[in-house]
Amino acid sequence: MIENITSLRPRYADTDKMGIVYYAKYLEWFEVGRTELLREIGLPYTQIEAEGIILPVIEVLCKYHRPAKYDQPVKIISRVTEKPRARIRIDYEIHDEANGLLAEGYTIHSFLGNKGKPVRPPVSLLEKMALYF
Amino acid sequence: MIENITSLRPRYADTDKMGIVYYAKYLEWFEVGRTELLREIGLPYTQIEAEGIILPVIEVLCKYHRPAKYDQPVKIISRVTEKPRARIRIDYEIHDEANGLLAEGYTIHSFLGNKGKPVRPPVSLLEKMALYF
Amino acid sequence: MIENITSLRPRYADTDKMGIVYYAKYLEWFEVGRTELLREIGLPYTQIEAEGIILPVIEVLCKYHRPAKYDQPVKIISRVTEKPRARIRIDYEIHDEANGLLAEGYTIHSFLGNKGKPVRPPVSLLEKMALYF
Amino acid sequence: MIENITSLRPRYADTDKMGIVYYAKYLEWFEVGRTELLREIGLPYTQIEAEGIILPVIEVLCKYHRPAKYDQPVKIISRVTEKPRARIRIDYEIHDEANGLLAEGYTIHSFLGNKGKPVRPPVSLLEKMALYF
Repeated sequence: MIENITSLRPRYADTDKMGIVYYAKYLEWFEVGRTELLREIGLPYTQIEAEGIILPVIEVLCKYHRPAKYDQPVKIISRVTEKPRARIRIDYEIHDEANGLLAEGYTIHSFLGNKGKPVRPPVSLLEKMALYF
Repeated sequence: MIENITSLRPRYADTDKMGIVYYAKYLEWFEVGRTELLREIGLPYTQIEAEGIILPVIEVLCKYHRPAKYDQPVKIISRVTEKPRARIRIDYEIHDEANGLLAEGYTIHSFLGNKGKPVRPPVSLLEKMALYF
Repeated sequence: MIENITSLRPRYADTDKMGIVYYAKYLEWFEVGRTELLREIGLPYTQIEAEGIILPVIEVLCKYHRPAKYDQPVKIISRVTEKPRARIRIDYEIHDEANGLLAEGYTIHSFLGNKGKPVRPPVSLLEKMALYF
Repeated sequence: MIENITSLRPRYADTDKMGIVYYAKYLEWFEVGRTELLREIGLPYTQIEAEGIILPVIEVLCKYHRPAKYDQPVKIISRVTEKPRARIRIDYEIHDEANGLLAEGYTIHSFLGNKGKPVRPPVSLLEKMALYF
């Protein structure tokens, strides 16, 4: 398994008139989480793109348990629990330091090459990830 | 069943450096869809809020089939296929007029009262929706 | 002078915990305004990009007089009052149908070619705009 | 003078199809900058709100010199150079660590009380800021 933990503070821009963080913003936080996970294993997403491969999201799920609040730091836990094959799945948990689990979900990504066609995961990614399984 | 169809043009602001619409933006479009669905049945969301009830999202799923593109109109189809009980589920499809289905998903909402506690769906909502089932 | 008027409804996503529309969202509305202005004169922005030219914003100003509210339609008035030369300036007003002027501002754009270098405004744009001055 | 420097990494969500950060996102970064400035002088914005006062933006200007890029850390410099009176002005610079100044601008804020009426700056704010002038 690969796990990364990173933190951020919800911005005023993230909130809505319910006084809590708008539901779509969690997907940006998922992005922050997987970006840091890839950086941590030594393969920043910029490098994957430099190899001509992109990882568009093909599915996302998010369950909201408690609302995130303005300026109260949240912890983003991102995990890859299975070796990527044609696709890669990343699981996420969003925690408030004071109130525990706020939300959880996952994203599934495909690998696309320069022409927008599905390709196999880049060797660089498979090699980096193989160390964790 | 209740169904609403509405349209919009993806903005430059909605795109990302892949040249397509960023995945979290679809959740804003889901919001646009359900807002218009509620307006169509004669119960705008502003009125629900005026009755002291909010409908936070407790779960969202979205599957992405083809990317939405800048300035190419998309059609948002929103449907309520089951009478709401403690929760209400809304299904969505995002279509490109030229390229067919782009994405599909759902949101599930709870009903919360003034103090943030779960309440029963407002009578006004149940009555309006009863006409469709 | 060239003038375009378009309308939209503020989304829940546009609001913040003050209960009003977040200040950065007005810049997205400016974008909607200038996009429709260009479409109206027969030169959609997609066509300008297809000619290999982009119009990045190099300056923006916005003054906020009254807050825009969730779901209350706003009218976006966009104007080009001077022939574009090395740059083009667009002025905006955001109106609430009930409450009058909410905000006003401008954007200034340069013209960049494929290599990111400044270029002269495309002939197609100058010709279309010349009809209005 | 009061000065705060904070950093962040542009997200994929921040970019647009030009491959650079969308112009409205800089206003969110200005927000991050002033939030950290207020925290640094010992008066977090949450505390100002807890005293029943909000600081809506009444004017913003931003000049864009060079584009911010995905994942390349930017430094946000926020400064208050004049004692706040009926209004407070904050100046900002956005720097790329490698490429120098990317953008600069300011926001002007008024002070509003619970009923949405202008009020004098809170004493707590004036006292904290007086130490710097």
